[in-house]
Amino acid sequence: MLRALREAGAAEASRPAGTEPMTPEHFVYMDHAATTPVAPEVADAMRPFLSERYGNPSGIYALAQDARRALDEARERCAAVIGARAGEIIFTGGGTESDNAGVMGPALALAKQGRHIVTTAIEHHAVLNAAALLESLGWEAARVKPQRDGAARAEDVAGAVRPDTTVVSMMLANNETGVLQPVAEMARLVKQRAREERRTVAVHTDAVQAAGAVPLDVDELGVDFLSLSAHKFGGPKGAGLLYARRGAPFAPTQVGGAQERDRRAGTENVAAIVGMSVALERAERDRERNAAACAALRDRLLSGVLERVEGVEVNGATDARLPGNVNVSFHGVEAEALLMGLDLAGIAASSGSACTAGSLEPSHVLLAMGRGNDLARSCARFTLGPENTPDEVDYVVETIARLAPKLRALSGAG
Amino acid sequence: MLRALREAGAAEASRPAGTEPMTPEHFVYMDHAATTPVAPEVADAMRPFLSERYGNPSGIYALAQDARRALDEARERCAAVIGARAGEIIFTGGGTESDNAGVMGPALALAKQGRHIVTTAIEHHAVLNAAALLESLGWEAARVKPQRDGAARAEDVAGAVRPDTTVVSMMLANNETGVLQPVAEMARLVKQRAREERRTVAVHTDAVQAAGAVPLDVDELGVDFLSLSAHKFGGPKGAGLLYARRGAPFAPTQVGGAQERDRRAGTENVAAIVGMSVALERAERDRERNAAACAALRDRLLSGVLERVEGVEVNGATDARLPGNVNVSFHGVEAEALLMGLDLAGIAASSGSACTAGSLEPSHVLLAMGRGNDLARSCARFTLGPENTPDEVDYVVETIARLAPKLRALSGAG
Repeated sequence: MLRALREAGAAEASRPAGTEPMTPEHFVYMDHAATTPVAPEVADAMRPFLSERYGNPSGIYALAQDARRALDEARERCAAVIGARAGEIIFTGGGTESDNAGVMGPALALAKQGRHIVTTAIEHHAVLNAAALLESLGWEAARVKPQRDGAARAEDVAGAVRPDTTVVSMMLANNETGVLQPVAEMARLVKQRAREERRTVAVHTDAVQAAGAVPLDVDELGVDFLSLSAHKFGGPKGAGLLYARRGAPFAPTQVGGAQERDRRAGTENVAAIVGMSVALERAERDRERNAAACAALRDRLLSGVLERVEGVEVNGATDARLPGNVNVSFHGVEAEALLMGLDLAGIAASSGSACTAGSLEPSHVLLAMGRGNDLARSCARFTLGPENTPDEVDYVVETIARLAPKLRALSGAG
Repeated sequence: MLRALREAGAAEASRPAGTEPMTPEHFVYMDHAATTPVAPEVADAMRPFLSERYGNPSGIYALAQDARRALDEARERCAAVIGARAGEIIFTGGGTESDNAGVMGPALALAKQGRHIVTTAIEHHAVLNAAALLESLGWEAARVKPQRDGAARAEDVAGAVRPDTTVVSMMLANNETGVLQPVAEMARLVKQRAREERRTVAVHTDAVQAAGAVPLDVDELGVDFLSLSAHKFGGPKGAGLLYARRGAPFAPTQVGGAQERDRRAGTENVAAIVGMSVALERAERDRERNAAACAALRDRLLSGVLERVEGVEVNGATDARLPGNVNVSFHGVEAEALLMGLDLAGIAASSGSACTAGSLEPSHVLLAMGRGNDLARSCARFTLGPENTPDEVDYVVETIARLAPKLRALSGAG
């Protein structure tokens, strides 16, 4: 089936081979939740650190101190966007490392106080598997289920806190559905209880998908730890950050040298960190305008699909979700076949998380929301970016409307 | 004192401020053990992945598969240099992560068999602190002392293996002294004993400093795990690899998505990984020529210093060490003052490891070799690269010969 599709699509799309640069008329990128193009001003900012400004920031000499200064400036820039102090920013190698450290760091630091953590069933695997790693070391973990609309309730998460709970981790926006989670409300409830019981419960949020789309003020969120990944907001792959509130308990998970004030060992990736800081500043500067533009495109895409295609189900709340996220299930359509067909028409989209693409497991997020296996396997995620256009959206709707009935007929569900 | 030196030096050197590009006549870089310039062909190979080839390798569509192919090619390239299969290469975010994973990965995987590991007292902190992290989780660790020449004996390390030992980690070349360690011999002894006792003892080597200087064939070394860091051999910061022998027990330390065959979660830093693979291939291609050139410069530097300066002590064996490493202690001279003086003359060097620079602790490596606190605090490390010249070496000797007596007079030890 896929081969037939490939041949049919190849004739239609006549797109150049993958390794050649693609031109806009051949290529529509709607997988911004997986990764984003590096903004040209970001690449420009990085370039000197891949050539003459190559110092190791830990050195004593001028070339090294030049790198140190660039790092300090990047730290100030990132801190300003999220309302933090520079000293509260820990640079990491990416979102996964940040999530691992944001969960395990406080858990290890508070091991003597208790060995129980609370998270939700719809977290990214970087959080879920950090919880599992802690379980293998003797911790216990609660995974709170979301409502059918894809949002976990703040009271449910706070209610799962036990006397031996030390860490609560809840994402700000889900990476598959884009559904926003009530982090600020949850943090308020958890912190209130911790205050009453005179103990520490650290609150972490995975804000990887939220950056550039919703405000990230750490005081308004009331969190102790917050994770970001540069390549989700126009920065390069290989850089992330973990906000760690001053005084919050934290044991490093990547250990070695004294970098990042003893909180994250390893030579700093200066080029990528500088790139991330420029990208984050830019994402914040353009946030409201981009969010409005993406939301308009998202609504156009969703209403187009609902109008043109039968048997479509929207996954997750339509209102409280990221502006650029459309996640829909097509009854009787195998997602992989649809995505292959879209690819042949020059459209990049995905089913759920890129990190688990290729696995045959249905989405843990949709299953936790109460979707059956079939609907979970027939979902497609379109995540829009500021460079997408209404014409692109119309082309995507058109292509889906053409492919879905064919695929249903092929799978015998038509 | 430092301020006086700075003013004196500034007048002499008239070098432009750190952020401006430096010209060769002003700048001599002799801290290649800390980091190396990115080779132009490496930067060229990376560039497309910071612009149009931005796909997430886990996606299903052409742009993503293009990145996947680039990753696969990089993997083949790296595997070929160290005599491994492509599937045995795990890409990481750098040397520290590789070292952490190379020690903790097998230790976690073999936790049910035993909770004891063996390493040496002169490892990089990425290994030493991984051992300490395991200790905080209930493991025990032996740290074998080296001889006075800076090399740990293979029999001493193998002899520290207990019935509950699961991991032995020994570096291939020390990052401070450059002294080569008998990894192949140690691995042979450890593996022989493990075979006799019908159990698994995993052998890891931190080869971060050895790449591009000595052969890295994993079968000749007989190791199960081997760590590399791209920016030590002309590649970018933010990429490393861990060789993991097929079938060797390994539990991932960075957890989340299914990347790297479930052995290292997180979106792959495609640009940096491609850059690393090109740099590693290049380092291997030029290895013998560079090693010979660096060794000649090293001998010129060392004999020049010994001839021109009084009270100099060489740290570590002069023969079995990396070709580009000169590590010397100057009696009665504070290393930091010497390094500041060198910096003002446009010379970049360091005292011991860049990762602990700025700390006031004397080198743990020199202390373990039996050096007193004073000598450990008065050491300077010059690490040469293929772009250094005899003229540069002579200028460095000249500068040291001028500075050392002044600094001794200032510290009252003259």
